[in-house]
Amino acid sequence: MATRLTAAVIGAGYWGPNLARNFRASAEWDLAGICDLDVARARRVSDSIGGVAVTADLGDILADPTIDAVAIATPAHTHHRVALAALDAGKHVIVEKPVADTRERGIEMVDRARQNALVLMADHTYCYTPAVLKIRELIDEETLGQILFVDSVRINLGLIQPDVDVFWDLAPHDLSIMDFVLPGGLDVTSVAAHGSDPLDTGKACIGYLAMPLDRGGIAHVHVNWLSPTKIRQMVIGGTKRTLVWDDLNPQQRVSVYDRGVDLALQSKETADSRAANISYRLGDTWAPALPEREALAAVVAEFAAAIREGRPARTSGDAGLRVLSVLEAASASVRAFGAPRPVETLVPEVQGA
Amino acid sequence: MATRLTAAVIGAGYWGPNLARNFRASAEWDLAGICDLDVARARRVSDSIGGVAVTADLGDILADPTIDAVAIATPAHTHHRVALAALDAGKHVIVEKPVADTRERGIEMVDRARQNALVLMADHTYCYTPAVLKIRELIDEETLGQILFVDSVRINLGLIQPDVDVFWDLAPHDLSIMDFVLPGGLDVTSVAAHGSDPLDTGKACIGYLAMPLDRGGIAHVHVNWLSPTKIRQMVIGGTKRTLVWDDLNPQQRVSVYDRGVDLALQSKETADSRAANISYRLGDTWAPALPEREALAAVVAEFAAAIREGRPARTSGDAGLRVLSVLEAASASVRAFGAPRPVETLVPEVQGA
Amino acid sequence: MATRLTAAVIGAGYWGPNLARNFRASAEWDLAGICDLDVARARRVSDSIGGVAVTADLGDILADPTIDAVAIATPAHTHHRVALAALDAGKHVIVEKPVADTRERGIEMVDRARQNALVLMADHTYCYTPAVLKIRELIDEETLGQILFVDSVRINLGLIQPDVDVFWDLAPHDLSIMDFVLPGGLDVTSVAAHGSDPLDTGKACIGYLAMPLDRGGIAHVHVNWLSPTKIRQMVIGGTKRTLVWDDLNPQQRVSVYDRGVDLALQSKETADSRAANISYRLGDTWAPALPEREALAAVVAEFAAAIREGRPARTSGDAGLRVLSVLEAASASVRAFGAPRPVETLVPEVQGA
Amino acid sequence: MATRLTAAVIGAGYWGPNLARNFRASAEWDLAGICDLDVARARRVSDSIGGVAVTADLGDILADPTIDAVAIATPAHTHHRVALAALDAGKHVIVEKPVADTRERGIEMVDRARQNALVLMADHTYCYTPAVLKIRELIDEETLGQILFVDSVRINLGLIQPDVDVFWDLAPHDLSIMDFVLPGGLDVTSVAAHGSDPLDTGKACIGYLAMPLDRGGIAHVHVNWLSPTKIRQMVIGGTKRTLVWDDLNPQQRVSVYDRGVDLALQSKETADSRAANISYRLGDTWAPALPEREALAAVVAEFAAAIREGRPARTSGDAGLRVLSVLEAASASVRAFGAPRPVETLVPEVQGA
Repeated sequence: MATRLTAAVIGAGYWGPNLARNFRASAEWDLAGICDLDVARARRVSDSIGGVAVTADLGDILADPTIDAVAIATPAHTHHRVALAALDAGKHVIVEKPVADTRERGIEMVDRARQNALVLMADHTYCYTPAVLKIRELIDEETLGQILFVDSVRINLGLIQPDVDVFWDLAPHDLSIMDFVLPGGLDVTSVAAHGSDPLDTGKACIGYLAMPLDRGGIAHVHVNWLSPTKIRQMVIGGTKRTLVWDDLNPQQRVSVYDRGVDLALQSKETADSRAANISYRLGDTWAPALPEREALAAVVAEFAAAIREGRPARTSGDAGLRVLSVLEAASASVRAFGAPRPVETLVPEVQGA
Repeated sequence: MATRLTAAVIGAGYWGPNLARNFRASAEWDLAGICDLDVARARRVSDSIGGVAVTADLGDILADPTIDAVAIATPAHTHHRVALAALDAGKHVIVEKPVADTRERGIEMVDRARQNALVLMADHTYCYTPAVLKIRELIDEETLGQILFVDSVRINLGLIQPDVDVFWDLAPHDLSIMDFVLPGGLDVTSVAAHGSDPLDTGKACIGYLAMPLDRGGIAHVHVNWLSPTKIRQMVIGGTKRTLVWDDLNPQQRVSVYDRGVDLALQSKETADSRAANISYRLGDTWAPALPEREALAAVVAEFAAAIREGRPARTSGDAGLRVLSVLEAASASVRAFGAPRPVETLVPEVQGA
Repeated sequence: MATRLTAAVIGAGYWGPNLARNFRASAEWDLAGICDLDVARARRVSDSIGGVAVTADLGDILADPTIDAVAIATPAHTHHRVALAALDAGKHVIVEKPVADTRERGIEMVDRARQNALVLMADHTYCYTPAVLKIRELIDEETLGQILFVDSVRINLGLIQPDVDVFWDLAPHDLSIMDFVLPGGLDVTSVAAHGSDPLDTGKACIGYLAMPLDRGGIAHVHVNWLSPTKIRQMVIGGTKRTLVWDDLNPQQRVSVYDRGVDLALQSKETADSRAANISYRLGDTWAPALPEREALAAVVAEFAAAIREGRPARTSGDAGLRVLSVLEAASASVRAFGAPRPVETLVPEVQGA
Repeated sequence: MATRLTAAVIGAGYWGPNLARNFRASAEWDLAGICDLDVARARRVSDSIGGVAVTADLGDILADPTIDAVAIATPAHTHHRVALAALDAGKHVIVEKPVADTRERGIEMVDRARQNALVLMADHTYCYTPAVLKIRELIDEETLGQILFVDSVRINLGLIQPDVDVFWDLAPHDLSIMDFVLPGGLDVTSVAAHGSDPLDTGKACIGYLAMPLDRGGIAHVHVNWLSPTKIRQMVIGGTKRTLVWDDLNPQQRVSVYDRGVDLALQSKETADSRAANISYRLGDTWAPALPEREALAAVVAEFAAAIREGRPARTSGDAGLRVLSVLEAASASVRAFGAPRPVETLVPEVQGA
């Protein structure tokens, strides 16, 4: 391997320490420093991983020519400003989800990265878990057949975030995973979002997203900060098999059910006669073995590989934009009392990125 | 107790045998006979419960002056015709859910029962389970506080019904339970429904219903015939506590969580300052003991009591109408690609019933 | 098929009604009557299945030449007397577990059946469940490899039986299942039993059975009437795979884990070097599809087949004796404060049966 | 608070890093260094916590007058030698479970600590988890009533340890917890142990321990390295209520069931008439809220408090000895093919410690 790359972490709040620890532990990276306006907080993170430089001044990081890349784990509304500054300083960027607080700002970030020939990676961490990597592989191998529906539930008693509602806080996980595993990515043209703020906090604390898929399918997401029980489950139904991912069951996270409804289709038949040809399959269940591995280690390795190979990361800025497009349409739908709203597709120049 | 009442069961398909068995076992009822166009099927049901008269001719039942009441367990599109005939013959009527296949027909049934001073009861069986009776009691006693949200999931690999979609097949359960346990009944003014028919069967096999509640709350239902796993769970969130009903966990069906988000409200504050006053409660969990008792036995007992006391049943025809109103609005919403549609409220004359 | 066989059921308590219902529903059998000292109780069972003759006099049954066989579901201490009378009257006999209340009486029953050339079948119902039939098949096909251990847990808040302790009440299930699925049957030479009667009821309410298996293996049973939670789980570990049967999980009763410890054995090595050659397999999990089918229907069908074919039933009187031998040794061990006690093997004449 | 105490950690293998991290993070302690024969391993641990001195020479630690105490996390057979050296050097000692590899050596360690007026603490970490602390509190408050039985299961696919069998590896957890929560501690007079080594590794990989309790009760432990599924569950049955601790269910670790068997005892009755007076309680279930807190932080705090206050730690050397006494009797029972063996009680001099 060539020499190691050098990174700095911006933001020492909830997620920054995990990024710092993984850069530090990676064979691909040197960790040059941690930046946080609260320098004492940065110092605590530094101490916990054996000591690296800390600073409260982003300029210190950006002016350091030995730093190849920055990881941005600041509040969402600052991503745009910090990322553009870093890209303009010639740094590759990985940015926590959501990539930006508006789709327009996300587009600007992606454009800037392309113009400067730098990698802009979305830290869609879940996509690098053994479970999601296996799900993507199973779908690629057509184990499930054509995808009929996706139902995702992510509920828990959660912190009511000061700056984002439950859609922007939690749904990026579900949406980025769908974008990663579905054959055509997160290719939805409209979304209906139903939000609820029953405690009058000023933002939705309960949210539902319904998105039609091709050929009559549907994707649905339920996110909730007010549930006393914790559920993290995604069901992906296919024509051949159906997969259930229960992330809170470490003994059997992913189950593939050879159960379902079969349709003996014949030419010229009507929907009624189709119904008559339905039969049920009650086959075996199979749960693939999954390694226990920290996803973030794979994230920082992929970031290094994308930089070295001059290619987009597997979870690229464009992937981040597709998530933002759905979130922005969801916000519009909430404002329209749940009426479906179109999801903007990427402009051609961006799609080529 | 006075003399026993006499009933006949119309329809010997899926649900009829259960009704017949419970009328037969009840101390309140004599079971006079079972009617089904397929008289051999009626005979088999009769044999299984020790033998009662069977007939293929509804006229035999309606002309029998010793019969006080009929239980209708025929396909939904026949409920209206059979019920009106029975009401016109002076019989009290209990009818399987959904009460009718359109709201208009349901209204006609309710009107006819009132005109003839007969009981029309909706067989909302779940409302008589020990779990739902306990939930209603807990909400009545304000154990949960004001209701913030209701989330109901009822999914399973299910028979694709020939005559109804998944909303009309499964959601009557969820809606009738909400109608029974919520302080003001199923009082929703609009519904957005998202249906999916990815197997092209001619009807929705996956469905989501979103219904705004008062004061920013929300009720949501997920019904699905294509899920390889079975879930029957309802979460009811309140300002004081949150209840989870997991009907497939016989060892702990109902759990009351003293966990949640508290809001220290003060006058003149803004939503932002409200957020600042949020705190979390992580209290105990409590699961009330529930008897194991067949709900349908309580259904036939309540039917007898309503007849004897000349009062509406606890799950009255009006309750059935409230469910139909939501289902009809849901169908309209599906046709409108998920745009919310208003739920018709009952006409004044009916409300007085 | 030839003409149907005719049966009578003796005992209308807990299990008799199930036997009566299944004989009644079987295509192989006519049910001639039900006998119980409490004739009103017999009458209620008769009514529930469409009406058959009832009597309080066992003699009526035994004297009836049209009756081919009897099913004995009376208290355990009466099995011996009723069975011998029936065998002497020329009736085939199926008897509820435990087959008798002592091993000696069980041997006498088996001997009498052989002398009279009649079938004596043990109603080891669990052995006819789809789960246990599948487990036997998997072990036969060497899916698990050589069996290393069996651990069975059957605990619940249970009725404290008037006539038997928890070993004789519950362990016959576990022991008869082991006898059915293990390649050599329930072939154990000693048992250590630890019983506990902390409520001073006069009999063990909590029990543990430990039984060495060949080649260092072990079988263990935990039965308990005082557990507030219900567990019915058996783990069968093999050199190739390990199977877990969780009978209370209808969605995945039987799971086969391709996880385990591998040992690279070489000649001349010591135990220490063996330990050094251990490696771990963390492979997939697989859950075979199982039909939902009532086991007792298969029991009465097997009873008929054994009679027609003049062969021992799959769960023969000898199988019942093997269970009794372990139970009797267990009782001796309890009296010896848990010291292991030898399990009597069958006398040669019996083994040939 | 006075000045901080100073500790060193001996052993940087599996558990040492956790001890080092918790001493480092504690407000009560300074961590002076880490000692391991493999100094590179010690260095890695040091780096992971921000850097402390490392050495391969235990003498460096023992000769350092600024060090008040050592934490021993070396293999079990070295505990005795290291602990005596440390105690002779005037250091307080906390030692990983099992405290020693024989009871005799454990007694010598306890004696030496007493002679030198130093604290010898057993690192029975589980006793400091929120769940076990709550269980102890509930038993102390007589929520459960008199204890009738304890059943503990700790099974998993586990590493086959080079130096100890499954009893000595896993059962110290169960035994130390029982010692901590039971009113009279682990007060058992005999144990029957059934071990199995079906893979011929030279040591038991599956183990069962049965220990009679006072008044007909029983304690039982099941430990297993060969189980493909992971279970960590303890049931504690009492005359008033029964508690289930399921350590793998973070949402409801501890449940208290108001279910059980009631006995209406009267004077002069026989066991038979007692049985007639049994009734069942099917009451509510209650799950206390538990904080999420790392147990080892409480361990190091308790170690500091015991030193400062000159008192035995809550999990003292004597507690460790009681565990060793049972383990040694268990090994004797295994050698005697499962025959019960007496548990040595502490010699009087030791009991006073």
